[in-house]
Amino acid sequence: MVDYNPVLMTDMYEYTMLDATLQDGTASRDCVFEVFTRHLPEGRRYGVVAGTGRLLDALADFHFADEDLRFLRDRRIVNKETVDWLERFEFHGSIRGYREGEMYFPNSPILQVEGSFGECTLLETLILSILNYDSAVAAAASRMTSAAKNRPCMDMGGRRTNEWAAVAAARASIVGGFQGTANLLAAKLYDLTAIGTAAHCFTLVHDSERAAFESQIDALGRNTTLLVDTYNIEEAVKTAVEVAGPELGGVRIDSGDLAALAQRVRNQLDALGAVNTKITVTNDLDEYAIASLQTAPVDSYGVGTQLVTGSGAPTCAMVYKLTERAGDDGTMVPVAKKSTNKATVPGRKLAFRSYEYALADCEHVIAGGKEELDAFTPEEGWQDLLVDFVDHGRIDDRWRGHDAIVDARTHHEEALKALPITAQSLMRGDPVIPTQTLVLPQ
Amino acid sequence: MVDYNPVLMTDMYEYTMLDATLQDGTASRDCVFEVFTRHLPEGRRYGVVAGTGRLLDALADFHFADEDLRFLRDRRIVNKETVDWLERFEFHGSIRGYREGEMYFPNSPILQVEGSFGECTLLETLILSILNYDSAVAAAASRMTSAAKNRPCMDMGGRRTNEWAAVAAARASIVGGFQGTANLLAAKLYDLTAIGTAAHCFTLVHDSERAAFESQIDALGRNTTLLVDTYNIEEAVKTAVEVAGPELGGVRIDSGDLAALAQRVRNQLDALGAVNTKITVTNDLDEYAIASLQTAPVDSYGVGTQLVTGSGAPTCAMVYKLTERAGDDGTMVPVAKKSTNKATVPGRKLAFRSYEYALADCEHVIAGGKEELDAFTPEEGWQDLLVDFVDHGRIDDRWRGHDAIVDARTHHEEALKALPITAQSLMRGDPVIPTQTLVLPQ
Repeated sequence: MVDYNPVLMTDMYEYTMLDATLQDGTASRDCVFEVFTRHLPEGRRYGVVAGTGRLLDALADFHFADEDLRFLRDRRIVNKETVDWLERFEFHGSIRGYREGEMYFPNSPILQVEGSFGECTLLETLILSILNYDSAVAAAASRMTSAAKNRPCMDMGGRRTNEWAAVAAARASIVGGFQGTANLLAAKLYDLTAIGTAAHCFTLVHDSERAAFESQIDALGRNTTLLVDTYNIEEAVKTAVEVAGPELGGVRIDSGDLAALAQRVRNQLDALGAVNTKITVTNDLDEYAIASLQTAPVDSYGVGTQLVTGSGAPTCAMVYKLTERAGDDGTMVPVAKKSTNKATVPGRKLAFRSYEYALADCEHVIAGGKEELDAFTPEEGWQDLLVDFVDHGRIDDRWRGHDAIVDARTHHEEALKALPITAQSLMRGDPVIPTQTLVLPQ
Repeated sequence: MVDYNPVLMTDMYEYTMLDATLQDGTASRDCVFEVFTRHLPEGRRYGVVAGTGRLLDALADFHFADEDLRFLRDRRIVNKETVDWLERFEFHGSIRGYREGEMYFPNSPILQVEGSFGECTLLETLILSILNYDSAVAAAASRMTSAAKNRPCMDMGGRRTNEWAAVAAARASIVGGFQGTANLLAAKLYDLTAIGTAAHCFTLVHDSERAAFESQIDALGRNTTLLVDTYNIEEAVKTAVEVAGPELGGVRIDSGDLAALAQRVRNQLDALGAVNTKITVTNDLDEYAIASLQTAPVDSYGVGTQLVTGSGAPTCAMVYKLTERAGDDGTMVPVAKKSTNKATVPGRKLAFRSYEYALADCEHVIAGGKEELDAFTPEEGWQDLLVDFVDHGRIDDRWRGHDAIVDARTHHEEALKALPITAQSLMRGDPVIPTQTLVLPQ
């Protein structure tokens, strides 16, 4: 049994940097780090922030166990003084950013971490791991949910990604609009709706399809969903209604031409009087396949591979960069790197979105020192995108747990509606609104 | 703090199937399930098995805690009798399959799980999650290692994938030929070489690049690797050698045209007398970028995004299918589903690879009942691909832990060499050897 302890879920250089800066004194310099991305995945119209609640959970668990300290010491990753510092470690910084479910665009300041260099550095890898993966899944879920219109989408992708990533994916899929998940640990940890009835092996282990259906009805009731494509779908549907009666809850089709099959199965079910029996389809769906099924009589979608792998964009290219830090005298100094194609904008950021008229919607990023930003007045109607998650080490629990996930889904739905309708186009194109960065003079 | 307990890292239907089959008696039927894939990712020449050792670790931890049982009961996922059965659960089955690091092809029986329907079913999702992700990363690592020839590749991808997936990816990258990882938890759990020194923020938090380099040398010694592209590379290299002397261990370049920059930096280092100072490059590398750097004076590669996302193939489409099960009288019966494009080959499998002459290399999959397979004699020179991992519940620890990972890397290297040289081509093409499936008559 391994304890989930996030402190070593990180790159070694975070610790070697901590070690060196504790020795030279810069570890205690006040800093502002920001998470942003230079571009959306190719052709995507918007990104979806997800994972913030998980990040706060991880932060609450961010304490060093003896075995972690022993590892860092024995491997000589840090020296004795740094081990002592880590033993006493508590995060005292502040974190704000885009709420979960919020849309983001290139250069949006998605997360802002303010604290000493030492404490902010330790969180880098963990923050990026969580946000990069969860946001990739939420964006895919959002596109699928849009394509599905009012039909519910369900996560069935756990087997196609790392077993822990599966739990995060289930959660992120809800943020992006999904209604439930097959993943039981996600259902337990986040109190999500769990779904699932039977696989083909269930039919195969029985002596006949009829015996399998009878067993499933006995155990799960007539409202269950029977899998009908193990042998011959038409036969299976006939047997299913014979066994369960017209009250049968649903059937699932997991292979073949789903549009054509759904229509044939619907006709057959209706002819058998099972007019309320639902049809679920689940064969390698992505947002395009879902869109192509809009006119087919399908009631819900089970999505696997493409959900948990971000539908072609399995990560988000979010980075975590130092944008401001104290100098020797304590004064905050905006900083930036100048690396080719990777230069950063110095100074902490504010972010607003304006929806004045559809074609002029815009993300406004304002960069500068704290004083300039405090004195900045946004134009009327600009919506402030930054919320506070952690205040000097105190985590705001509103952003964690089940309710936060459902709130995020609602917020996401509203945020998507507020954008130009092009956002919901599945055609490749530019970000649906531009980001304008204004650097305030110092 | 959350305990790592794999029992709920699964799809709900595994439990509802268990529940129904415990009620109707089929849960105790002897079964053979097999993991295979119908196709490699598009254009790939081979797949690499990885994750088996992690699977055995998870199996060793596969015990139900009270809170897991409470969840299953309170959510009414299973009934009281099933909860009692789970409370006493121990896996008594046998598992064999391709060893870690082994190549696989379409229809290779990568893993074979033999046991009661109930126990085999409970493991499905977990087995697929682990193998699908780890094998995707190992395949990417293998291609990168091939492209890098004798230059070491290092995993720096943790921030681009889920924080636990990062740990699995680090491990799988070693199986595929990598030499070390930035991920500390992976280094701790599997006793792997950890690498990393400093990021751009380290330079930025200091008052000057020189101050940063001095601090790093003080803390990590002259043999450290300095990051030289925060501002101006030429200046940085000059400063680096001034500060560290010609004994400087290495420099890292993380942006720009890496081939051109590596050459310029090499020339500059040589001119400064730092002829043994190594050059590491790390900017969005994949196997193609690494191949294009073959003639550049680069000493090692740090790979991130493309490693942990499988370089375009973030999962492996492995499935877990029932191929044989006992009937009412206990006799084993080969079974198969007939779903469109998803039909399976009935019967358990043997697997051999023949290397008789380069152009006739072949993967031979022999399907049949246990008796027919026991009586089957492979041709001379056919290499048996199946090894035993678990014998009636007893895990063979040879396949777990650090040594198993290093052995897997060695085995992988040899297995790759044994294949036709085309295997190492980065051009898209068919699997490098065909799989021939022979179904023995019963």
